[in-house]
Amino acid sequence: MTDWNELDVKEARMAGHAQGTHLDPWQDAYAAKAAHLKESEIRALFAVVSRPEVVSLAGGMPNISDLPLDQLAESAHRLITSHGAQVLQYGSGQGWEPFLESIAEVMAVEHISADPGNISVTTGSQQAIDIVTQLFIDPGDVIVAESPSYVGALGVFAAQQADVRHVEMDENGLIPEALDERIRDLKAAGHRVKFLYTCPNYHNPSGVTLSEERRPQAAEVCRRHHVLIVEDNPYGLLGFSGRTYPAIQTYWPDGVVYLGSFSKIFAPGFRIGWAYAPAWIRKKIVLSLESAVLSPSMVGQMALHGYLRDYDWYGQVTTYRDMYRSRRDAMVDALTEFLPTCQWTVPDGGFYTWVKLPEGVNSKTMLPRAVTELVAYTPGTAFYADGQGTDYMRLSYCYPPEDEIREGVRRLARVVSREVELQHMFSPDRSGGHE
Amino acid sequence: MTDWNELDVKEARMAGHAQGTHLDPWQDAYAAKAAHLKESEIRALFAVVSRPEVVSLAGGMPNISDLPLDQLAESAHRLITSHGAQVLQYGSGQGWEPFLESIAEVMAVEHISADPGNISVTTGSQQAIDIVTQLFIDPGDVIVAESPSYVGALGVFAAQQADVRHVEMDENGLIPEALDERIRDLKAAGHRVKFLYTCPNYHNPSGVTLSEERRPQAAEVCRRHHVLIVEDNPYGLLGFSGRTYPAIQTYWPDGVVYLGSFSKIFAPGFRIGWAYAPAWIRKKIVLSLESAVLSPSMVGQMALHGYLRDYDWYGQVTTYRDMYRSRRDAMVDALTEFLPTCQWTVPDGGFYTWVKLPEGVNSKTMLPRAVTELVAYTPGTAFYADGQGTDYMRLSYCYPPEDEIREGVRRLARVVSREVELQHMFSPDRSGGHE
Repeated sequence: MTDWNELDVKEARMAGHAQGTHLDPWQDAYAAKAAHLKESEIRALFAVVSRPEVVSLAGGMPNISDLPLDQLAESAHRLITSHGAQVLQYGSGQGWEPFLESIAEVMAVEHISADPGNISVTTGSQQAIDIVTQLFIDPGDVIVAESPSYVGALGVFAAQQADVRHVEMDENGLIPEALDERIRDLKAAGHRVKFLYTCPNYHNPSGVTLSEERRPQAAEVCRRHHVLIVEDNPYGLLGFSGRTYPAIQTYWPDGVVYLGSFSKIFAPGFRIGWAYAPAWIRKKIVLSLESAVLSPSMVGQMALHGYLRDYDWYGQVTTYRDMYRSRRDAMVDALTEFLPTCQWTVPDGGFYTWVKLPEGVNSKTMLPRAVTELVAYTPGTAFYADGQGTDYMRLSYCYPPEDEIREGVRRLARVVSREVELQHMFSPDRSGGHE
Repeated sequence: MTDWNELDVKEARMAGHAQGTHLDPWQDAYAAKAAHLKESEIRALFAVVSRPEVVSLAGGMPNISDLPLDQLAESAHRLITSHGAQVLQYGSGQGWEPFLESIAEVMAVEHISADPGNISVTTGSQQAIDIVTQLFIDPGDVIVAESPSYVGALGVFAAQQADVRHVEMDENGLIPEALDERIRDLKAAGHRVKFLYTCPNYHNPSGVTLSEERRPQAAEVCRRHHVLIVEDNPYGLLGFSGRTYPAIQTYWPDGVVYLGSFSKIFAPGFRIGWAYAPAWIRKKIVLSLESAVLSPSMVGQMALHGYLRDYDWYGQVTTYRDMYRSRRDAMVDALTEFLPTCQWTVPDGGFYTWVKLPEGVNSKTMLPRAVTELVAYTPGTAFYADGQGTDYMRLSYCYPPEDEIREGVRRLARVVSREVELQHMFSPDRSGGHE
């Protein structure tokens, strides 16, 4: 009875407020893992980014303005008039067979000879990360990931209560010796190490690529420790020199779940990605997908299938490469000119550069001041599971055109130098350093 | 060591087989809940159903042959040429705002005055079931569901290791007194009862509809016990008389998560559904969705938005109603003529009738014999979490045309009467009854 009275008092107090500000009556009903759902730092930025006066170097939206819209419109029209009853219907849980074959052809570009029967179509490769994580992770299980790692994957890992441990990278990507040592120590300490999550090509956020010689080494380390590899590869075809690296999957087909995406080599709007896994794991992925969404969108699958079959999709990829290379150049030029006190990676492909701030400047606390100066970036802390990253920021050059990139970095430089000044002003050295 | 020797023997025996038949080297790596992923009985039927000579009364595929494909093709063309850069891009995790407003207008038909800000767009309403279940269910938590209940939801519940308890229905749907008693007993026994999962309109698989007077009663029972309601409503607009019932949501807006779908009132191919929830829960749903898929397909959202805005979508719903009513009539006529030894429900809308077989006939063991006679159905056991349902089968009249429905039931009648004969032949009474 006391409980009810208390509730009544609270309800009376809150009467007239909007529902969202009431105390959540379901607070005690959520699953334990619901407490681990957190708003990502990138998400909090969305509202800011949408203001046109802000130069956003924060998001990861591809620039799709070069797509041949008239041709795509024609294809969509033809698809619906000629195959409408199929395109608008349910499909199979794993994906539409002709489309699985098209995907295998895309994978062949990265040296993978894929059995279409082991491909599963997902609602963007984000869903593949979610499904694979749910398939392998019990609360407390360890996922090993690069230091730093993709914010969207870290969100999934947190939601499934994984214990994420980072492994050092250098300019050639993940360091196999460090990986070996880390896994050995974790296992020795009794941890269940479930998989390595890695983005070998034009890494998000670091922009670094795993060297070709390290690929078999990374596979061998994991094979020896019997640790699965989840190889996330949305940017692999976007190398600025046109070079494509063999996937880690090619060195250990039985131990790698490879994730692919059309969001960067075509467009994100259909939300179509895929997972390629050994048959044992693929079977469980398909059951998970059926449970999650019944079947992937036939509209998306058939439209993409038509695009891959009827259109010079690889020519479009080369167009994208040229465009992103110019933007990378604009970014690096601007950093060189305006931010000489910082260090940054020079990516050979993809969307991002990873910038180390001058000693003592905090990317998280600096962000509101940057937004005041009408420029946005993603603080480095978003890319770690353990609070690291305050001295880094990710700058994206994928979406804004070159002159905006330059203007964004110019504004950012102003913010950084003010931070440095402030820091000097209040540092122990300057203020007398007593204690 | 003994274990390894055994493994070696097995592996040697299996050498040369396809990968899928090898022992899974990752067997010990899966999460505990992966063991609960089961192939649904409906899934196993898919291979059979696709053979053209089989009349399938098993699936739940809508008949979308009446859709105005030429107009839809025109709309798609216009959408891509005029809004291509938006339609092919990422969107927000919750959904595209103008589309949320369109959905609110659809919900108004079922007496719900929805705040668009509390709608979340999902990849089919299946994803909404999955997300809500993950949000509330820790292993062992109880979900109360009708007896029988939707197979696709039961699959999700099993995957999340929920303890599903069924509650009796009669011809007016879920019985509020039985619900009350069941929840009371479960709580008294120390169970955490998390939600009631219910499909009030033209229930899948029973075909029964919750009467209008029971709706506030069901809401009140749950409110009193502080048990959330998940109201799954894919068929609500497909009432053959044109009547629409007020959603349970309208009686308890703070305690109901309402799930909607475009798969039956338009088409499934875009995989677009939605969840409508109180703001506290909606916030967590959106975070879960972002983690699962980043954002729903803009292609699907913008295409559906255009369809709802530019096309007489409600007129299409009335076309569907007429078509499905004729098929329901064909089904009931055929049952009356060919299967008088069975009992069945006469649905006022939706896709399904629920058939009780003659005493002792087992729908699960009968299925292979039915398929031999070129007719398929879904055994009743698919719709229970606890092995019940051997004496029931679900017959769908949604996809096959009327003459095929009639022919399917005729074939089924032959199978049933042979089962009855066999049973008589071997029953204790006939064989002398010694024991």
